Amino acid sequence: MKALVYHGPGKKSLDECPKPEIIDPTDAIVKVTKTTICGTDLHILKGDVATCKPGRILGHEGVGIIEKVGSSVSAFKTGDRVLISCISACGKCAFCRKQMYSHCTTGGWILGNSIDGTQAEFVRIPYADTSLYPIPDGADEEALVMLSDILPTGFECGVLNGKVQPGNTIAIVGSGPIGLAALLTAQFYSPAEIIMIDLDDNRLAVAKRFGATKTVNSKDGKASEEVMTLTGGRGVDTAIEAVGVPATFELCQKIIGAGGTIANIGVHGTKVDLHLESLWDRNLTITTRLVDTVSTPMLLNVVQSKRLDATQLITHHFKLTEILNAYETFGHAATTDALKVIIET
Amino acid sequence: MKALVYHGPGKKSLDECPKPEIIDPTDAIVKVTKTTICGTDLHILKGDVATCKPGRILGHEGVGIIEKVGSSVSAFKTGDRVLISCISACGKCAFCRKQMYSHCTTGGWILGNSIDGTQAEFVRIPYADTSLYPIPDGADEEALVMLSDILPTGFECGVLNGKVQPGNTIAIVGSGPIGLAALLTAQFYSPAEIIMIDLDDNRLAVAKRFGATKTVNSKDGKASEEVMTLTGGRGVDTAIEAVGVPATFELCQKIIGAGGTIANIGVHGTKVDLHLESLWDRNLTITTRLVDTVSTPMLLNVVQSKRLDATQLITHHFKLTEILNAYETFGHAATTDALKVIIET
Repeated sequence: MKALVYHGPGKKSLDECPKPEIIDPTDAIVKVTKTTICGTDLHILKGDVATCKPGRILGHEGVGIIEKVGSSVSAFKTGDRVLISCISACGKCAFCRKQMYSHCTTGGWILGNSIDGTQAEFVRIPYADTSLYPIPDGADEEALVMLSDILPTGFECGVLNGKVQPGNTIAIVGSGPIGLAALLTAQFYSPAEIIMIDLDDNRLAVAKRFGATKTVNSKDGKASEEVMTLTGGRGVDTAIEAVGVPATFELCQKIIGAGGTIANIGVHGTKVDLHLESLWDRNLTITTRLVDTVSTPMLLNVVQSKRLDATQLITHHFKLTEILNAYETFGHAATTDALKVIIET
Repeated sequence: MKALVYHGPGKKSLDECPKPEIIDPTDAIVKVTKTTICGTDLHILKGDVATCKPGRILGHEGVGIIEKVGSSVSAFKTGDRVLISCISACGKCAFCRKQMYSHCTTGGWILGNSIDGTQAEFVRIPYADTSLYPIPDGADEEALVMLSDILPTGFECGVLNGKVQPGNTIAIVGSGPIGLAALLTAQFYSPAEIIMIDLDDNRLAVAKRFGATKTVNSKDGKASEEVMTLTGGRGVDTAIEAVGVPATFELCQKIIGAGGTIANIGVHGTKVDLHLESLWDRNLTITTRLVDTVSTPMLLNVVQSKRLDATQLITHHFKLTEILNAYETFGHAATTDALKVIIET
């Protein structure tokens, strides 16, 4: 089968690989019909993710059709259409039993990381019963690819951790796909103001279309002053960090109001300064989280009910044979205006 | 009247000062019967608290008797015995109306900071109706001095923010008065293990007596390894920072388990490193807080019911005329074993 293989920092190719086989009785083999590329895949290609070794098939998002199931899989059968979660959950360990699937002791984020992933014609999904979701009849499968990772990540790590409430003022720092996923799902809770902050005017224009009430271009280094002006000097109730560099986390600390919450989504490669000398008495909450995908069933309902149009996040389409072009397009979003790309097998 | 006056960094004296007068109709004048010294007073004396200017009478804790009330005070009258909260709350601003009294727009921590405090024979208490508490009949007034600041601070900033739960494992970094206040109040929620960490064996012995299940001396720089061993490699559910220096906040980051909470109580003078490069995916919560004293009525009930013996925290007694000795004793706790000192006027 064809698959996108990571060959060490900066190196990838579309290779002919052996089709995956059932290893454990809890496995399913899924014929991938649609997949996508995540910012995390770009991190891997930079060599930032030590757990992902050369030779690995990338990808942790997608939808497909069950090809084969292991002997103990009972919730799915051959031919079922399924949504693949980026998080594999055994359902039995102490973390799984408190719904913290991200830290499953034998699962978590392993797909396209420590085991082969979804940017392929077929993928082996461990713990199939608790890591796949049935696709409802008549569902838009492209929209559902956004439910593998990006929408639950924006929602759980940003909106839920950020305690977004009706009437509140929130800021989202970073208007890339994850920031936009937070923007879309924040609106479930009717905040009064959503201030979107980015360096790129095109992305801010997209954010406006997606429901941001205010936008701030942070290019001039004065974003914090602008946000303080917009909030009458009070700062925001929730600041969602959706970039993953020290400067954006610093900005969150400058714009957060007393009693507020900074919800980090960004994947950080270095330590950051935490200004406890001015924040120790500000009654703040700061959260970090790897998505647990506990909200996937709820998000499936929301997307099915048309309350949220997840296809807005999709800007480009490619065939699996064109996946190197897809990486080029996704990796140069500033010039291509790419958000999420759909790759059909 | 006699009062302890701050005269700039490193300088204080017991001076003869004018007796305070009612300024606003919401004020009360309280004859202070017992007060104490807080670690924060030592910070002021180091010059760390810019809002506290030379000439200021220090102190934000104490009990006393109402001497006089302003025309709009209705909850108290002359002769009432009262507990003074370290936080003055107007009760009317947006922060007060959500019980975030610490950030009252015209109050908060002002006593012994931006207005004269309690280390004096008399003190003016602004917003008396909402900043004083009636002392129940038969109460041990020495114990109640611990309710002005230290017990609500340990409880609200450490235990409540730290989400201490039955069966959980918690660590408290710093076994000074505030760490011990957190230790005493953490036991309301029956954690399975309370690991107390400090550099001083005497303080750790006190912690054992106060209910710590394990103690770790961090002198050898191996406290994090010891805590990881004690927790079977999982780390703690809650780490309470009760010191206020970068090293102790760093230690909290090393010992916190996935899904855990770091509750900062310490007053920090410099920024700290936050290791988001390893914590971004650990599902952590980090909190900061200046005490709101919302729990004071509850803590009054607990102390009255003898469920908590607050007098355990008191090691020394002085007269107001001996307050300079009291500062010496409190300021050299490593040799005097001082926890809280009671100063009687």
